[in-house]
Amino acid sequence: MVTIGIDLGGTNMAAGIVDENCRILAHASVPTGVGRPYDDIVRDMGALVNRLVAENHVDWADVRWIGVGAPGVLDNDTGTVTDNSNIRWVNYPIRQKLQQYTDKPVFLGNDANVAAWAEFVGGCGKGTKNFLLLTLGTGVGGGIVLGGKLYTGSHNTAAELGHMIFRAGGEKCGCGNHGCIESYCSATALIRRANQALPGHPGSALNNALPLNAKKVCDAAAAGDALAKKVFDEYVTDLAQVVASMVNMLDPDVIALGGGVAGAGEFLLKPLREQFPRYVTFFPAVHTEVMAASLGNDAGIIGAAMLGNA
Amino acid sequence: MVTIGIDLGGTNMAAGIVDENCRILAHASVPTGVGRPYDDIVRDMGALVNRLVAENHVDWADVRWIGVGAPGVLDNDTGTVTDNSNIRWVNYPIRQKLQQYTDKPVFLGNDANVAAWAEFVGGCGKGTKNFLLLTLGTGVGGGIVLGGKLYTGSHNTAAELGHMIFRAGGEKCGCGNHGCIESYCSATALIRRANQALPGHPGSALNNALPLNAKKVCDAAAAGDALAKKVFDEYVTDLAQVVASMVNMLDPDVIALGGGVAGAGEFLLKPLREQFPRYVTFFPAVHTEVMAASLGNDAGIIGAAMLGNA
Repeated sequence: MVTIGIDLGGTNMAAGIVDENCRILAHASVPTGVGRPYDDIVRDMGALVNRLVAENHVDWADVRWIGVGAPGVLDNDTGTVTDNSNIRWVNYPIRQKLQQYTDKPVFLGNDANVAAWAEFVGGCGKGTKNFLLLTLGTGVGGGIVLGGKLYTGSHNTAAELGHMIFRAGGEKCGCGNHGCIESYCSATALIRRANQALPGHPGSALNNALPLNAKKVCDAAAAGDALAKKVFDEYVTDLAQVVASMVNMLDPDVIALGGGVAGAGEFLLKPLREQFPRYVTFFPAVHTEVMAASLGNDAGIIGAAMLGNA
Repeated sequence: MVTIGIDLGGTNMAAGIVDENCRILAHASVPTGVGRPYDDIVRDMGALVNRLVAENHVDWADVRWIGVGAPGVLDNDTGTVTDNSNIRWVNYPIRQKLQQYTDKPVFLGNDANVAAWAEFVGGCGKGTKNFLLLTLGTGVGGGIVLGGKLYTGSHNTAAELGHMIFRAGGEKCGCGNHGCIESYCSATALIRRANQALPGHPGSALNNALPLNAKKVCDAAAAGDALAKKVFDEYVTDLAQVVASMVNMLDPDVIALGGGVAGAGEFLLKPLREQFPRYVTFFPAVHTEVMAASLGNDAGIIGAAMLGNA
């Protein structure tokens, strides 16, 4: 038996056939075409899935269900989605519409939650009980698994970790508030910090790497560029306090880091593991492990495909 | 059938006989006598409970269990307690020791978690599924109930809400870190804010109310004292962001406020309810209610007595 996961993004929608061991057996994607009527987007989702199944000679009888991960508030009870990102769903009955193209059960989940579920079921969170994923990308997202279940809150909006306030009154966030975790710990924030620090430091290698991205800043820091190192160190100190806050609140087995900045691997994780315990109230009674997420971009498809077990 | 709850505090230990409807039928307390050997403290707990049962003519056969709420890390699996507050337990086998004085099952819980469990089972959280208690007292404590179960984390240290970092780099907290929620939202922090603001404002009524406490600051603000109002408003704005952060993370049905500052009632709750939604990512999809805790100091005994259901 297999399941199908659909990762509906702002640029592309990707679908994959996934086996019971969380392996993607086949996948395909097409542009989402944001701005079109919702029904057209869902029609393309249906076509994508049917094409994927046909081209890979899968028998629909062997497909247990379809899972969809999308931005916004996904209500798996009512089968609807509401989202204020660029797709702009408004109480759209996505399950009912998608079932025009398939007779399989359809499960829904928020894209960041779905990624956390993937890491828990088949990635770095395997074997844990309480697990958090924090993605350090363009924004900061997250997902929470507690007691072995995906935790989505009372109104399907839990785990908006990036918009918890970390430095009240600080940098303005894209959400309109000031001092959100996202405005200090996203890849975007790392780049902003570097760009703000550059003037007056003509000797920094970052001047020759414009426009900056997170990898360039991390690489320059690792190579010993003093300015990049200072910016990176400040970022790590903030992230350590954020990680500790999550530990103080939820005391999980593992906090996994995903997204662009997590690509720095041990260069990020080593100082982070050294620093975050000093902000943990009950250290050393707490033994939360901090590690890199392991599924990368596949988490969206895998987590969606596994939603029937969430 | 009844149960017994013990609320072990730094000053007194209180015990109560509690019925199935969370009513305290009888209670008694004696000084904790911090600094004495652990075994002496537990011997007094045993004596207190036995005296309470005897004096109230309760048949031990009608007592289902004993629950103990205490500061620190309580491990209900191993029956031990570790605590770095003034009681200073270190891996102490409190269950085994207490069972020298009773043959009833003994359940253990952290005091703040136990208070949250009390509010969930028999107070303002009754009928909810996901519930948070935030106590605004000398410090800021909390407890989390998720899916109808007391959530204690992977290492029994969850819900240290007061030491999540809210204004990184800000006021020094008693824990040694800077900018903890506790250092902005405790009663102590409200008093500190008022004391810091007083110089240069000889006209403020607070000058005639020294030494200040949280109630005096709230009352002066409610009476229209300009300086007290300014201090109180800043406190509320910070608390609104803290409440919103908890909503963004856990999306509960209810966040209840306890402790001294919550005694201000609607004078605190009304502006808080107006302000916190602006910091909630998915407002208005989120409908978390913010209300005052309802059990007051009884929460410690009631929650401990109800631990067998947690």
